[in-house]
Amino acid sequence: MKRKHIRGFRKLTSVEDARRRFFGAVVGVREVESVRITSALDRVLARRIVARGYLPGNDISVVDGYAVRSVDLHRASSKNPKVLRLVGESRLGELSRAWVRRDETVRVATGSIVPGGSDAVVMVEDTLSLRGNRVAFHEAVRPQIGITAKGEDLRPGELVVDRGTRLRPEDIGLLKALGLTTVPVVRRVRVGVLSTGDELVNTLRKNSSAKIIDLNRPIMTAMLKELGATPVDLGIVKDDEVAIKAALKRGLAATDLVLVTAGSSVGRRDLVPACINSLGKPGIIVHGVAMRPAMPTGVAVVRGKPVVSLPGFPVSALLAFRVFVRPLLAKLVGAPELPEPTIKAVLKKRVRSIENSRTFVRVRVHRVGNQFVAVPLEAQRSSLLTSMVHANGIVTLPESVQSIEAGTEVSVTLTGSVAASSSSLSKPVAS
Amino acid sequence: MKRKHIRGFRKLTSVEDARRRFFGAVVGVREVESVRITSALDRVLARRIVARGYLPGNDISVVDGYAVRSVDLHRASSKNPKVLRLVGESRLGELSRAWVRRDETVRVATGSIVPGGSDAVVMVEDTLSLRGNRVAFHEAVRPQIGITAKGEDLRPGELVVDRGTRLRPEDIGLLKALGLTTVPVVRRVRVGVLSTGDELVNTLRKNSSAKIIDLNRPIMTAMLKELGATPVDLGIVKDDEVAIKAALKRGLAATDLVLVTAGSSVGRRDLVPACINSLGKPGIIVHGVAMRPAMPTGVAVVRGKPVVSLPGFPVSALLAFRVFVRPLLAKLVGAPELPEPTIKAVLKKRVRSIENSRTFVRVRVHRVGNQFVAVPLEAQRSSLLTSMVHANGIVTLPESVQSIEAGTEVSVTLTGSVAASSSSLSKPVAS
Repeated sequence: MKRKHIRGFRKLTSVEDARRRFFGAVVGVREVESVRITSALDRVLARRIVARGYLPGNDISVVDGYAVRSVDLHRASSKNPKVLRLVGESRLGELSRAWVRRDETVRVATGSIVPGGSDAVVMVEDTLSLRGNRVAFHEAVRPQIGITAKGEDLRPGELVVDRGTRLRPEDIGLLKALGLTTVPVVRRVRVGVLSTGDELVNTLRKNSSAKIIDLNRPIMTAMLKELGATPVDLGIVKDDEVAIKAALKRGLAATDLVLVTAGSSVGRRDLVPACINSLGKPGIIVHGVAMRPAMPTGVAVVRGKPVVSLPGFPVSALLAFRVFVRPLLAKLVGAPELPEPTIKAVLKKRVRSIENSRTFVRVRVHRVGNQFVAVPLEAQRSSLLTSMVHANGIVTLPESVQSIEAGTEVSVTLTGSVAASSSSLSKPVAS
Repeated sequence: MKRKHIRGFRKLTSVEDARRRFFGAVVGVREVESVRITSALDRVLARRIVARGYLPGNDISVVDGYAVRSVDLHRASSKNPKVLRLVGESRLGELSRAWVRRDETVRVATGSIVPGGSDAVVMVEDTLSLRGNRVAFHEAVRPQIGITAKGEDLRPGELVVDRGTRLRPEDIGLLKALGLTTVPVVRRVRVGVLSTGDELVNTLRKNSSAKIIDLNRPIMTAMLKELGATPVDLGIVKDDEVAIKAALKRGLAATDLVLVTAGSSVGRRDLVPACINSLGKPGIIVHGVAMRPAMPTGVAVVRGKPVVSLPGFPVSALLAFRVFVRPLLAKLVGAPELPEPTIKAVLKKRVRSIENSRTFVRVRVHRVGNQFVAVPLEAQRSSLLTSMVHANGIVTLPESVQSIEAGTEVSVTLTGSVAASSSSLSKPVAS
């Protein structure tokens, strides 16, 4: 018998179409809050920050050495060194009163203010200290050598950090350099996490072995924390229309996005899509996505608020989260999606796609000599959580590709560490 | 004049040699603590976890459908459907009393226990429900189809998650599935962060414009938080031997690793290496590394505890952190280093290495059509923090390479998001 439809779905929507239609119907988080700069790591900047002052605020020496007038050293050479008179010192952290006049020099340290009159600093290693406060120089210098000029890093009006930036340690440093103590950031996204299923419990009592521990709430909660969102636990509800609707309503009122797992297939007990549709327009936008695992995923919007209906198997829920929720969270706060580590690896075994769907093959990447090898795990069923846990990478087969042969070089999205490899700064990588 | 030594360093050590000698002298963190599984994200598992029971604990249906004896459907076809008698239902979360005998079937749901006697489940979409509690089947099925067998995910004695794993959401899910409520993890690494310099202040009062706000402590603190370490603020001390020694001593007593910024060059005020050496053996292991920026970096061990002496310019301190501290933190907790996102991009302008050193060129990566282009920032001086902030990637020139020509494809370590790109799961990437 030829199957007329795939597991009850009349037609599947491509990942790209589903994302376009879903994300296009969603409104971002608008609220801005002010946080101390020391708590701003990974928060998304809500407004562009423009410099009001100069950085550095003075001409600063970048070496330990001697401030000079470059014109004085015009003819200096190793055969004919130029000797200048040491007339003072510009100390770190002090406004120097020293001034460099013709044939004079002033001692400076890395970070100290370059004294007036001078236009270059010669590092101490390139000089010779003579008796009687005299210093010999053995080569000419160009103006501005050894100096970071006032405003060379930033001048008033220049962009410091753009809005939508997820603040990194270096951004925090630069904002602090400008004297900021707080920064305006986009409020964290609140995400409701709801599990449905008569079989689910939070913990398993002995002998109640027909029950299953709900894994999706702890997994989704951890995924959300990793991405800087605030998870809101909506608990477990039974496969009951009234209970599901009430929990969804509660979630929609308290959060910016609701994730609901299980009950998204087309079986008799799959009530979630109908419950979502009953709560407001437009409701379910796409139900059934051309991807494996996680084909029964549904995406919905209820009065501007996004709802994602994830399949019940944790592996499927995880992959649907990566495909839909991860980019959505970035979109909601107006930031670009975080880049993910990828690696080129040689596929060890042939892999096949499933029914023209984008197919996610879980692999174990090893380093073998100078190259990486990706071994598809034997167990690929979405009902097996070990298919995700024992993997450290995912190979994505596009919809248009039926299979990839063993020996092909593929790009692997890393989901875990690769043993014996080290960071990309560890090994030079120019090609 | 030909310079006899580079900024006062008699000889520079290669990055690889410095790392090997440094890491080889360091002892890891041994203490184990028990944390609730809900707080275990990103913590490093201290002991391998082995399954004690079966997962799943029963044969479970993976579809909504009908449990059958495969032998009964041996000759079923669309022309000659086999009709079975529906004798019961295995409800979600309930231990079923139903039993499948010859020519009988029992209704099951995704996640419900497969009743005794049956050995396969046919999905509801592939059946036809007839009057009088009868169901028609149109094709033969192989045994175990539609079923996840007891123990198919995990059996007693099988490895669940290995020691040294940085726990991901999926790992937390699997550990929870086995009934664990707490997990043994390696204590977080405590890292002392000390800044030295007469010019440094925490905040700038008006008119004290010869002072500079200390950026290294906030930057290092943020870097450490990102990597799951616990920063311990050791404050700012003046360029004074007694004060530096006292702060280092305090740090060594309270932490597993001390980072001290500035005072690491060979100028008159650079006291840090001498202070470190006075505190215990072996002291400074390498001082002066063949890398740019951050050449004056020093690595030391004092009675088993690592100390990293970082240059004072934040850009240099950041890069030295990435090269030495990031892998060290992983080593201290016995975990592989976290993979970093990288991207292949075409270099827009020629870049040169500096004096046979590993050279880190800060670039801005853009997407141009279907490829990525890496534009080296004009400002590359380590005194300019914008050289890091306005970059979203780093191109590493190996020691052996003098330059890389424009138009060459290079690997870029991403330090920020690339506008208009999306996650690697977004765009299929098989090559």
